[in-house]
Amino acid sequence: MKPQEIENESFRIIDSEAGAHGFPADQWPVVRRMIHTSADFEWQLMTQLHPDAIRIGVAAIRRGCPIVTDTNMARVGIRQRDLDRFGGVVRCYMTDARVAETALQKGITRARAAVDVAASELDGGIYVIGNAPTALLRLIELMDQGQARPELVVGLPVGFVNAAESKALLMERDVPHITNVGRKGGSNVAAAVINALIIMAGQDGP
Amino acid sequence: MKPQEIENESFRIIDSEAGAHGFPADQWPVVRRMIHTSADFEWQLMTQLHPDAIRIGVAAIRRGCPIVTDTNMARVGIRQRDLDRFGGVVRCYMTDARVAETALQKGITRARAAVDVAASELDGGIYVIGNAPTALLRLIELMDQGQARPELVVGLPVGFVNAAESKALLMERDVPHITNVGRKGGSNVAAAVINALIIMAGQDGP
Repeated sequence: MKPQEIENESFRIIDSEAGAHGFPADQWPVVRRMIHTSADFEWQLMTQLHPDAIRIGVAAIRRGCPIVTDTNMARVGIRQRDLDRFGGVVRCYMTDARVAETALQKGITRARAAVDVAASELDGGIYVIGNAPTALLRLIELMDQGQARPELVVGLPVGFVNAAESKALLMERDVPHITNVGRKGGSNVAAAVINALIIMAGQDGP
Repeated sequence: MKPQEIENESFRIIDSEAGAHGFPADQWPVVRRMIHTSADFEWQLMTQLHPDAIRIGVAAIRRGCPIVTDTNMARVGIRQRDLDRFGGVVRCYMTDARVAETALQKGITRARAAVDVAASELDGGIYVIGNAPTALLRLIELMDQGQARPELVVGLPVGFVNAAESKALLMERDVPHITNVGRKGGSNVAAAVINALIIMAGQDGP
């Protein structure tokens, strides 16, 4: 089978096993790709999408809105070649020299400092957090202070310390977001969300 | 909390919730890190380790054995800085010019062609497959033909088409391997396995 045939067959299996999932037609391609990348059907139970997330996210990608990731894994997992047609770029600030300096000066984690540097550089932007709860917590702080104005937040940090808590805070905010209940998450699933939006951006609607 | 404190607390929570998992002391750090990176306790039920996997894997890393990944996500997820002290390098052949050429010439997927190029270049090596079942199936073919002699295979392709089947074949081989039963897998979990071995390589024993 060719790669596209494997993907089609995978989606057919997911649709068949997912049954009556309750996601509207514009949200399901995102959740289905999260299941596809993880083989974990729990995503259909725990994923939470802000009602404007798909529309705003697809429009932002079509406009070439910059995408910021909290890890290089998420950065390289996003299909840059498909993003090229819209002029979009993906940046991860974790290895930026200013981040190491800011982290040292302020005595904070690099993940947190990377959000500070990104917010100082970008007006808007899509934030993709698949690893560090400290990054999501800092982004929410900056949003609350009016110092960050993301167009979309993909908030999927994973782990046992503050991951679920940081995502619960994101759900309370009115910013367009795609997140989940609980500890699960990951750079691979976060990248899959953006890849689903990039594919939708190349199609008609929504 | 500092990053190391967060990790320690995470491991404490995992140990506490995992209960009597049955993995010996040299295998548990690997499985625990797979759970840590995914927040998925199912890894303690589905992970399968060849009895020599830890000993051979740690020795290979200490010797600076080259590591080949099937995705750039797995490549950047492996802690190169910690590997530097052993002289190890991580390579992903997916964007190698020879791979595109071989895939075109032979009419095969790039993931499969990448294994051919890696095997032609390496004597031994640690193979890390976190995404493509076709890569693992090809590696097993080359092993059976004596054209690839991996020291360790981390076989964790994910998905709905041939992922579980390819891993079942790996389990039947006597090559040292770390793999799992079922569809789950991923570049993040595959990188976590190698990172656990790198940390063990820096400690005393096994």
